[in-house]
Amino acid sequence: MITFDHEHVPTEHLRALEADGIPVRPGPDALVHAQDKGVMRAKLDAIGVPCPRHRIVSDPQDVAAFAAEGDGFPVVLKTVRGGYDGKGVWVVDSVEEAADPFKAGVPVLAEEKVDFLRELAANVVRSPHGQAVAYPVVESRQVNGVCDTVIAPAPGLDEDLAVRASEMALNIAKELGVVGHLAVELFQTRDGRILVNELAMRPHNSGHWSMDGAVTSQFANHVRAVLDLPLGDPRPRAPWTVMVNVLGGDYPDMYSAYLHCMARDPQLKIHMYGKDVKPGRKVGHVNTYGDDLDDVLERAGHAAGYLRGTITE
Amino acid sequence: MITFDHEHVPTEHLRALEADGIPVRPGPDALVHAQDKGVMRAKLDAIGVPCPRHRIVSDPQDVAAFAAEGDGFPVVLKTVRGGYDGKGVWVVDSVEEAADPFKAGVPVLAEEKVDFLRELAANVVRSPHGQAVAYPVVESRQVNGVCDTVIAPAPGLDEDLAVRASEMALNIAKELGVVGHLAVELFQTRDGRILVNELAMRPHNSGHWSMDGAVTSQFANHVRAVLDLPLGDPRPRAPWTVMVNVLGGDYPDMYSAYLHCMARDPQLKIHMYGKDVKPGRKVGHVNTYGDDLDDVLERAGHAAGYLRGTITE
Repeated sequence: MITFDHEHVPTEHLRALEADGIPVRPGPDALVHAQDKGVMRAKLDAIGVPCPRHRIVSDPQDVAAFAAEGDGFPVVLKTVRGGYDGKGVWVVDSVEEAADPFKAGVPVLAEEKVDFLRELAANVVRSPHGQAVAYPVVESRQVNGVCDTVIAPAPGLDEDLAVRASEMALNIAKELGVVGHLAVELFQTRDGRILVNELAMRPHNSGHWSMDGAVTSQFANHVRAVLDLPLGDPRPRAPWTVMVNVLGGDYPDMYSAYLHCMARDPQLKIHMYGKDVKPGRKVGHVNTYGDDLDDVLERAGHAAGYLRGTITE
Repeated sequence: MITFDHEHVPTEHLRALEADGIPVRPGPDALVHAQDKGVMRAKLDAIGVPCPRHRIVSDPQDVAAFAAEGDGFPVVLKTVRGGYDGKGVWVVDSVEEAADPFKAGVPVLAEEKVDFLRELAANVVRSPHGQAVAYPVVESRQVNGVCDTVIAPAPGLDEDLAVRASEMALNIAKELGVVGHLAVELFQTRDGRILVNELAMRPHNSGHWSMDGAVTSQFANHVRAVLDLPLGDPRPRAPWTVMVNVLGGDYPDMYSAYLHCMARDPQLKIHMYGKDVKPGRKVGHVNTYGDDLDDVLERAGHAAGYLRGTITE
């Protein structure tokens, strides 16, 4: 078995591997939907999954036309390939601001700027013979376009909506032929709809809580799926689990902060990635769980802030 | 940092490492109590910890004298070094049977055969600056001298007795200068006493349940202690956690059994050690947890039996 992060590997290379008899999971036919936002939107349209209003645009004038077809500016522009964590995404208020996205020479997708109540994520895992499991739908809070906090399950989420989101994610996994973990990032709109924002075909930041919060973590289930093993129970172990990302701060040496956090909260789960610390870079995450959401949120937020250096007591 | 299993490394080698400025945790002065049962018994006597009646014996006639000093035969004989999983231990019923243990040329310890109700284990972890945590006291069920099943916490254990066992283990860790994990194997006698059977200074079979059943596993806390990091919460996450050892059976290839067990019980936690399968060899363990002890016991017992091949449906 060869394992590597193949999300950014061009489809033709993956097809060449398959042609040599090497199973690629997820395969290129599924993966292209996480690699190319234009292909993803066309497929979701075809299978009837609700998305923000969107179309490929050819130049700034076409962006203005797209805006006029709906409620006007602002409009969200995305290069169809290469974006993550807010990179490759622009929110533009006028035709004058719409020039930048076209400079990369990559097709540009225009989307309505959704008036959302909050962001959710539905994480599912599917194995080659079609077994699938759904993690509880979570709330994902972004800061400056980067995931900051995930709460499992999403607080106060209507059960019908939660079931609909899970079914939608399971249906996407099936229709796209996903093998392994699929994260479906969602907007919950103020008028009670759920729209698909992005897809990721790998263990995902919105599922990191499951390492300490679920019977089977997203990583274990992803590997089980890729190996076509029976999948593990995705249910939560505690009423609330909270994940907060640890971003690099001004201090490259987090060791003393690490000691402080462990001593302050013996139940805290710190996961550091061994990366060099750079300001704003995701270098780890912390998980907390318990019966009281406010307490669980406070503990995770404190630890992540202390490790970054934005909280000093 | 050099890491290795140093339980069977002669004390003089560990002292040589220390003399070269390499911290050894646990150090040789502590470790000798887990390496030499004679030293262990002498120390526990000195600090007032209750043990089975015992003394070093010099030959079979001396074993008969030891028996006559108490309630007679049977008597338990142990070589003071080199035993584990029932190896190096004899239960003898007469002076004629008492010859074998002396053949190895290692001092022999005689102990009364305790009329115990059950075996318990108190697992604690202690760090270099003296922080210590205690896991819940567990029940350990042996089959043919080998640990088979561990139940956390020990069912029906009187709370006073549980507190006494934990305090005893914490006191032993302190008095012996243990750094890292200390497992204290105990006999619970029919007349309500707890006596120390064995000591182990490392993550222990009686603590494997903690990998899935405690907030912080024994392995995580052992490493935290050795690195002098603040220790993690040792409390259980579920009302009951059960561990059953997977012993090698007649079939070296466990893969199909592995698939069956995962499919039958999506909550099952299987931990295989990557060892070659030999009959009777510990090649892994399974953990289950939940609210109902009978259910948790059945699931773990079924999985371990199925993996070994003694259960086929």
